[in-house]
Amino acid sequence: MGGKPIWLYQLSKAGKLCVPAMNVNDSVTKQKFDNLYCCRESILDGLKRTTDVMFGGKQVVVCGYGEVGKGCCAALKALGAIVYITEIDPICALQACMDGFRVVKLNEVIRQVDVVITCTGNKNVVTREHLDRMKNSCIVCNMGHSNTEIDVTSLRTPELTWERVRSQVDHVIWPDGKRVVLLAEGRLLNLSCSTVPTFVLSITATTQALALIELYNAPEGRYKQDVYLLPKKMDEYVASLHLPSFDAHLTELTDDQAKYLGLNKNGPFKPNYYRY
Amino acid sequence: MGGKPIWLYQLSKAGKLCVPAMNVNDSVTKQKFDNLYCCRESILDGLKRTTDVMFGGKQVVVCGYGEVGKGCCAALKALGAIVYITEIDPICALQACMDGFRVVKLNEVIRQVDVVITCTGNKNVVTREHLDRMKNSCIVCNMGHSNTEIDVTSLRTPELTWERVRSQVDHVIWPDGKRVVLLAEGRLLNLSCSTVPTFVLSITATTQALALIELYNAPEGRYKQDVYLLPKKMDEYVASLHLPSFDAHLTELTDDQAKYLGLNKNGPFKPNYYRY
Amino acid sequence: MGGKPIWLYQLSKAGKLCVPAMNVNDSVTKQKFDNLYCCRESILDGLKRTTDVMFGGKQVVVCGYGEVGKGCCAALKALGAIVYITEIDPICALQACMDGFRVVKLNEVIRQVDVVITCTGNKNVVTREHLDRMKNSCIVCNMGHSNTEIDVTSLRTPELTWERVRSQVDHVIWPDGKRVVLLAEGRLLNLSCSTVPTFVLSITATTQALALIELYNAPEGRYKQDVYLLPKKMDEYVASLHLPSFDAHLTELTDDQAKYLGLNKNGPFKPNYYRY
Amino acid sequence: MGGKPIWLYQLSKAGKLCVPAMNVNDSVTKQKFDNLYCCRESILDGLKRTTDVMFGGKQVVVCGYGEVGKGCCAALKALGAIVYITEIDPICALQACMDGFRVVKLNEVIRQVDVVITCTGNKNVVTREHLDRMKNSCIVCNMGHSNTEIDVTSLRTPELTWERVRSQVDHVIWPDGKRVVLLAEGRLLNLSCSTVPTFVLSITATTQALALIELYNAPEGRYKQDVYLLPKKMDEYVASLHLPSFDAHLTELTDDQAKYLGLNKNGPFKPNYYRY
Repeated sequence: MGGKPIWLYQLSKAGKLCVPAMNVNDSVTKQKFDNLYCCRESILDGLKRTTDVMFGGKQVVVCGYGEVGKGCCAALKALGAIVYITEIDPICALQACMDGFRVVKLNEVIRQVDVVITCTGNKNVVTREHLDRMKNSCIVCNMGHSNTEIDVTSLRTPELTWERVRSQVDHVIWPDGKRVVLLAEGRLLNLSCSTVPTFVLSITATTQALALIELYNAPEGRYKQDVYLLPKKMDEYVASLHLPSFDAHLTELTDDQAKYLGLNKNGPFKPNYYRY
Repeated sequence: MGGKPIWLYQLSKAGKLCVPAMNVNDSVTKQKFDNLYCCRESILDGLKRTTDVMFGGKQVVVCGYGEVGKGCCAALKALGAIVYITEIDPICALQACMDGFRVVKLNEVIRQVDVVITCTGNKNVVTREHLDRMKNSCIVCNMGHSNTEIDVTSLRTPELTWERVRSQVDHVIWPDGKRVVLLAEGRLLNLSCSTVPTFVLSITATTQALALIELYNAPEGRYKQDVYLLPKKMDEYVASLHLPSFDAHLTELTDDQAKYLGLNKNGPFKPNYYRY
Repeated sequence: MGGKPIWLYQLSKAGKLCVPAMNVNDSVTKQKFDNLYCCRESILDGLKRTTDVMFGGKQVVVCGYGEVGKGCCAALKALGAIVYITEIDPICALQACMDGFRVVKLNEVIRQVDVVITCTGNKNVVTREHLDRMKNSCIVCNMGHSNTEIDVTSLRTPELTWERVRSQVDHVIWPDGKRVVLLAEGRLLNLSCSTVPTFVLSITATTQALALIELYNAPEGRYKQDVYLLPKKMDEYVASLHLPSFDAHLTELTDDQAKYLGLNKNGPFKPNYYRY
Repeated sequence: MGGKPIWLYQLSKAGKLCVPAMNVNDSVTKQKFDNLYCCRESILDGLKRTTDVMFGGKQVVVCGYGEVGKGCCAALKALGAIVYITEIDPICALQACMDGFRVVKLNEVIRQVDVVITCTGNKNVVTREHLDRMKNSCIVCNMGHSNTEIDVTSLRTPELTWERVRSQVDHVIWPDGKRVVLLAEGRLLNLSCSTVPTFVLSITATTQALALIELYNAPEGRYKQDVYLLPKKMDEYVASLHLPSFDAHLTELTDDQAKYLGLNKNGPFKPNYYRY
């Protein structure tokens, strides 16, 4: 659905990018819709379709409180789960606090949780050591990126038995009989075990198409061999195209108000650094 | 508590800024804590202290779905109010939709709502025409900026009677007996009728102090006569200073993970454009 | 999962009940777990598995605000849907108001909603007239009881075309091309298109087993040919058996406290009329 | 606002009740509005007016998960507090689990919480031993009944210093300098430090008036020297009188539906044991 643009920036820094590139992944509509709002629903959907788990009363740890983590946590909390967060970034950690979540190190809660969800974009966030300490029936899945967040390789050892109990669901069985429920072999739950609503696809595809059109039509010199964010006006345009499906009615600035705010009545309405 | 930096940018554009300036208002911790999280609480506090209104079942329209509006709406919805939003920006409007709010023009709901709250940063958002159409006992207040959002001047006309019923609370009385409950004469409710938690003050003051220290200590040439955002690392530092009061425990990157992500283990952890 | 006991009471009133009966359906644990908490999750699960609909921003009308309706509404609201309620009972209607939902007649919103959900225990709550007025792609389903709530028979007419698009999902197509998405042919969505968590099954089965044991062991004369509610102490016993799976720790009354409250330290802790 | 009817039942059991009595406190509208919905708001209001505390990120323990406790917890959780529950009743404890709260013994969390709230109807729930173990600045208050829940008497000892810092707010100071913030000297926070919305007063007063009218008008013999619950039809009538203020529109049963359900079209709509 877009993918981490970190590699794009690394190419650019190394001087190896040979065409201009749009970082569509970090456009507002992509971040908020594809990541926050979509994951808020697909975490529930993915867990239900694979495990039929009841959310109410379950203890869950979510690794990472970025847009994906925020979406997962909001949904699980709303359905009665008790959610813990791990974070490396103090700003995101403080947000988690203010949103009502305990911020812990994974080791502090790993023995007591019923579900472990990774949303970090990092690697080896859940290690074999963590897996060894989980309680029986603990569910482990990845909502972050790629298949690196859970160290699945470490589970391919002779003393552990793998049992495929359903499509995308493996029981990994310890010698003492303990089972860990691994979903999608550590690949993305939202892509493997859930569906993507057409509404989100429409937003993402529109954003990508507009980015290509912009790059194609741009006068020479506007974009160099670098990575760019989508011009805010296009981001706003993508959003405005999707408002009618919610029967949402925008308010227009009066001339006087536009002048007061120093804005064009047709946008863009926010400075580039605005966070939404 | 900081104030809108729009004027600072206008000064800069006009070439009239004669020293470097830090836009502290748009640092992450300021935006999220002073605006989002603080207003989530002060809207309830301000309304209770002035009007003793019960929130459950009340219909409320919130003008503007920026950080302040998001905070107000989240709190009011959580306490059982039915909330409508007005917006000029299609991205914020789409966020309001996804968060479960109807996006309307003010005229569509003005006759039915029990409370009107402005959070736009704009002027004359609530006009005399709107005030004329409100129902009896409708409460009107401003959480946005300054005292411009509600056209209070338009209410200073001979046919309307003003009755001060309590400190910061005026009943404006129409000839037919209808009363509109105006709070703080249209000035900021959160500053006039609520208190600011010491925790938020600490965050804001820390941010401002660090910005001054940075400007003072910066080697010559780092900052010109322009407006700057706080370096991300300082924003992260402010956050990390406040984590212990929540007993929050940060996770540290391993060397291997830091290398994988291309990050320094001590931050900054996000690119400048990251929205939180 | 129990079923409506209304028929049992009618049998009893008519003097046709020839054995004692336990109304297990109205025991606390059954009502709250099987109905409220289970439906809070199965409405999301059932809709996702059949239609992949995104909940954020959708307008939904829920007919009936009993335990099932309360569960459905809480979940949908939490995920960003805008929910309207219809009710015949003023107490439940007032609860809906206080919980932040507009209480309307079905006709007032039928043209604008994206999803219609019935939870009334009644019949013909959604009529052909309502179905005729729904917008294109409106989803209609039943979470209440049996298959009577939606007048599905009225859709078996020659001018409408039925198209089975997936197991449990029919498109009913009007002559002008409008499609209504009917789930499970109007039967119970939670039984047809969702799964029941083992936790809920355990609670319900335990309750039923205890009721049978009580009826079997009761000294002659304790129960006549009538309908009884489960003794509160058994309801409490069912609950206490399920607390360890949440690692929940009960507090015990001191002798002094038990005396003050006039309670036995082992329960029952509430009068029979207590509503939880 | 009504008061605990436990004493009324004890009088009745002892044969000392010399007139019929209505237990108005346990009518549906009283329980849900005066207790659940009103406390959901007054806990926030009472804490803000006395302490200006920020709720986001605070750890709170609520003793008792009845209607009052449920209201307090819902509000605090919604505003970002992390809430723990203590309970003696396994059914209420299981509800707390499903609503997303950890159920603990007070001793397990007393050292870490920022706020302690009692809602039990019991006595000495918070003892001197608990108070000794609280951390500095911990806020202690009572939302339950009377002034018995917190053992305030135990704090009137020579080694502790009391400092009145504001109306209704005392700092109790330990020899090592630790301060506990005691609100309203352990009396009811919602009555001492918050206001009661007119809407709730209206519901309660209407219920009380109707109960008196019923007792006065009842034909001889309908009520003996015992305690009665308000006839359901009156409870429904109280509710229906308050619906217009929310612009709520009730649905009427058709003749056919009323017959199907075995109900009178004008109610009562629920059996006496219904829990809402």
